[in-house]
This record gives sequence, structure tokens and C-alpha cells, in this order.
Amino acid sequence: MAESQSQSQNKTAGGKLYIVGIGPGSVEQMTVKARDVILNADYVLGNSTYLDQIESLLGTQEVIRSYMGKEVDRARKAVELAKVANVVMVSGGDTNVYGMAGIVLEVAEHEGLDVDIEILPGVTAILAGASMLGAPVVTDFAVISLSDLLTPWDVIEKRLNLSAEADFVIALYNPKSRKRQSNFSRAIEIIRKYKADSVPVGLVKNALRGEGEDRIVTTLGKVMEYEDWVDMSTTILVGNGDSRIWSSQKKDFIITPRGYHKKYDY
Amino acid sequence: MAESQSQSQNKTAGGKLYIVGIGPGSVEQMTVKARDVILNADYVLGNSTYLDQIESLLGTQEVIRSYMGKEVDRARKAVELAKVANVVMVSGGDTNVYGMAGIVLEVAEHEGLDVDIEILPGVTAILAGASMLGAPVVTDFAVISLSDLLTPWDVIEKRLNLSAEADFVIALYNPKSRKRQSNFSRAIEIIRKYKADSVPVGLVKNALRGEGEDRIVTTLGKVMEYEDWVDMSTTILVGNGDSRIWSSQKKDFIITPRGYHKKYDY
Repeated sequence: MAESQSQSQNKTAGGKLYIVGIGPGSVEQMTVKARDVILNADYVLGNSTYLDQIESLLGTQEVIRSYMGKEVDRARKAVELAKVANVVMVSGGDTNVYGMAGIVLEVAEHEGLDVDIEILPGVTAILAGASMLGAPVVTDFAVISLSDLLTPWDVIEKRLNLSAEADFVIALYNPKSRKRQSNFSRAIEIIRKYKADSVPVGLVKNALRGEGEDRIVTTLGKVMEYEDWVDMSTTILVGNGDSRIWSSQKKDFIITPRGYHKKYDY
Repeated sequence: MAESQSQSQNKTAGGKLYIVGIGPGSVEQMTVKARDVILNADYVLGNSTYLDQIESLLGTQEVIRSYMGKEVDRARKAVELAKVANVVMVSGGDTNVYGMAGIVLEVAEHEGLDVDIEILPGVTAILAGASMLGAPVVTDFAVISLSDLLTPWDVIEKRLNLSAEADFVIALYNPKSRKRQSNFSRAIEIIRKYKADSVPVGLVKNALRGEGEDRIVTTLGKVMEYEDWVDMSTTILVGNGDSRIWSSQKKDFIITPRGYHKKYDY
């Protein structure tokens, strides 16, 4: 109630631009505030894939659907509308991590937009995937997208080499792109130069999305057996040198011990 | 309502252990499901700091408070109770990232616990902090804790060197520990070997916690001027070579362009 009152006040005072991470793709895994802001918006813009995931929240708002690859047009439209209305730009997962926050702010900067902007974070794929795998990411980690559409492949390769050498837990986003099907196998090849074949690897599809959830727990030495299973929407988590597999209730989990065993007796 | 029915069913079928990330520290930034699971628990265990943050959700549950450094005892207690009751172990931020998921699963493994375990992710500090700074983390990044309580300092130093060399956006957690006040300055010194002094740096305290929020936007060359401002609860975000500062509405934001400007005209 307080929420919708403050929304009305914003309306009279001019527009507001919210850039909102909707999380993994089910309303229950969104933040309470992200849900409330969407419910109270005048306009909701986003990629159709993500708008479908929050369909149950869309009723009174004007919805503007867009498509993959149209990020700049979508950002420009949001910035334009935000001059006079409450506008929500939705982003899958978190708004920062490979999300819409960057391009929307770039366009706002370019167009000299001077309205109130609020960015709402969300659960990004690595966190959703990790929660399905157990505790693979309890310590230092690196996140790398294998899509070379916006980042040159030699930069990606350098990051793969150095993060594997540093023995980070490594999360790989966008393992396969339409044009380059070999990105995933090349990345695994690089990581295997530094990490042992016994290191656990988790593959997760549609984590916490409510439907289509699937997971595989394997090792670095065996992960290429699942190459055909990996697609654009798969998140891959490669453990560090301490990670191990724990079997419980007929399922395999990945545990990366944080180091308590060195300090405490249990 | 469906939620509380399924809870009751769980009760009769035996215990269940939820390991729940409560996010940055205000109920509105928790996921909808994390909130509901806490509301319906028999027992809620956690560090007092985090229990205080969700006080408005605690009424009928039995609450077991614990303290920093007592993680193993807390985990053992949760595992014991979960044999017969619905137990929630709360973790600040996300349950994986420097959270409780690891130690709870380690103890469950050690004690041969065979009940249903569900892990619920949350918005971790880097995402909350990033949302306050604008769009600093829209591409590949590394997350490093500067606490050498559980990770040896030489490993931390190696990760700082290699992640800076790879030009990741770098997030630093736990920049100062009680015993070693110099971790932060040593980390900045290492990063400056690879990154230019003009690279933007954001410092965020209590991001999205509802109170005590504060932020500073500066550069790598000037960040040591704020050394006294940095404490255990500060999250630091160091940009990559493309990151820049945008001033809007009398505030500085950090934008890390993802690369759209190379592909599109805007």
C-alpha cells in the first residue's frame, strides 16, 4: 500500500526509470521489491522471454515487448518514456551481470536523461545454479561469458587462462553461441591445462525457473561427454582444487569447503 | 496458502533443512520464497546480525541466535533439528557466496544426515553494491575475499594478481579483518600494477540494507584517500579498462560498457 502511494507521488513529480532484475525466471525467486515495482509500473519493457516469465504480474501496465539483439532500441524507448511515466525495464537474472543496466545507463548518458533512475538487483544464474548444486561457490570465484559477440575471443581466452591458473571456482555463462559452437569445448580445454580432471563440474539448465530444470554433476575429465546437452541457457560451474562431490539421497552435490576443516574439529 | 500447506505436509513426513540467503538485509530485497519459507519454519537459526535484519518475519518460530565464529556449532545444531522439524539456517546475502551453505552441507555429510535439503539463493553484496553504483559489473568479473582467516594470504595475493592481469571487474569482500588492517592497502597496491589509476572504483556500505547506506565513487589512483572509510562491511568494486564515471543528478555512477558501442550506433 505504501508502495503504490509512493508510486503515485512519483507520477505527479515526473517519471522514474527502474531497471529491474527478475531473477531466474519464477516470481517466487524475485525480490519482494522487484515484484512490487513491476506491479505498480505504467510501462514494462523487456525481451519477450523475460516478460513471459513474469506474465502473472502483468495486467494494468502497458507492456512493450522486444527481442534479443534489440537491446539498444529497447533502452532508447525506456529512456524516452521515463521522462513522464514510471517505467520498468526488465532484465533476466540480475540487472548488472550481462543484463540491461549497462546499456540503459549508456543510452541515458548519451541522451542526457535527467530523471530518477533506480536499479533493483536480482538472483543471477550463478547463484540460482549453485543453489541447485549444493555449495560449489562458497569462496572466491570468476564469472566469464563465452559469447564473443561483444567481447573479443582473445580477451575471453586470456581470462579463462588466468582464472584457471588462480584456481578460482569458475562460472561460465553463454557456453555456446549460434555462430560459434566450439566455444565451450575450447574453454574446457584451456581450464584443463590448470585444473585436475577430478575437479567437480556442475551443469545447470533453467535453474529455479519452475519448469525445465535439469542438472548434471560430473568432473572436468568427463564433462565433454555432456557436450550435446549444453546449450545457450546452460550455466557451468567448475570447482576449485578443494571441491568434492557428496552423494546424498541418490543425488550428487558439489561442496567447495571454505576452509573451516583447517580451523575446527567436526 | 499453498506454501503453508506444503509446509505442513513436510512436517508430517519428517524434517527439512532450508539454507536461506536473506539478501542485503531488508525484507523487501529478499526473494519472495525466502520470506515465505522463513515465515513457515519451526526453527530459524542464524548469526544475530542477520536475525536482527529479518526481525519483522519472526514470531511463531523458535529462534536460535548464534555469533560470528560459531558457524560449525550452528551448522551442527541445524542438522540435528532438521531430522524432525522444518529448519531454516539463514545466511546474509547469498547462501553460497561466503555464506552458510558450505559449512552446513559439510556437517550434514559428516553426520550422514539424510533429510531433504533445499538451498535458496539471495542477492549477494556485489549485486546490491553494483545496483547502487550504476552498471559497474555488466561483464566478466572476479570476486575475492580479503579475509585470510580461512584462505592463506599467498592464495589471495595470487588471485589478485591474476584477476587484475586478466582485466576482470574485481569485487573485494571483507576488505579489512580485525587482525590484519593492511589487507585492503596491499590489495590495491597489487591491482595498481595492472590497472590504470584512472579506472573507476566504487565503495559501498550497507547496500540496500534500508539504513546506513553509503557510497563513494572514486578512482584507483585516489581510493587510498578513503582508507579510513573502509571497514569489514564495505564492498569494493574495481572497474575494468573500459569502465567510466557518469555524473547525473549530482551523483557519480560507474558504467562498464559491455561493447554495444562497437556494434551499434546510438
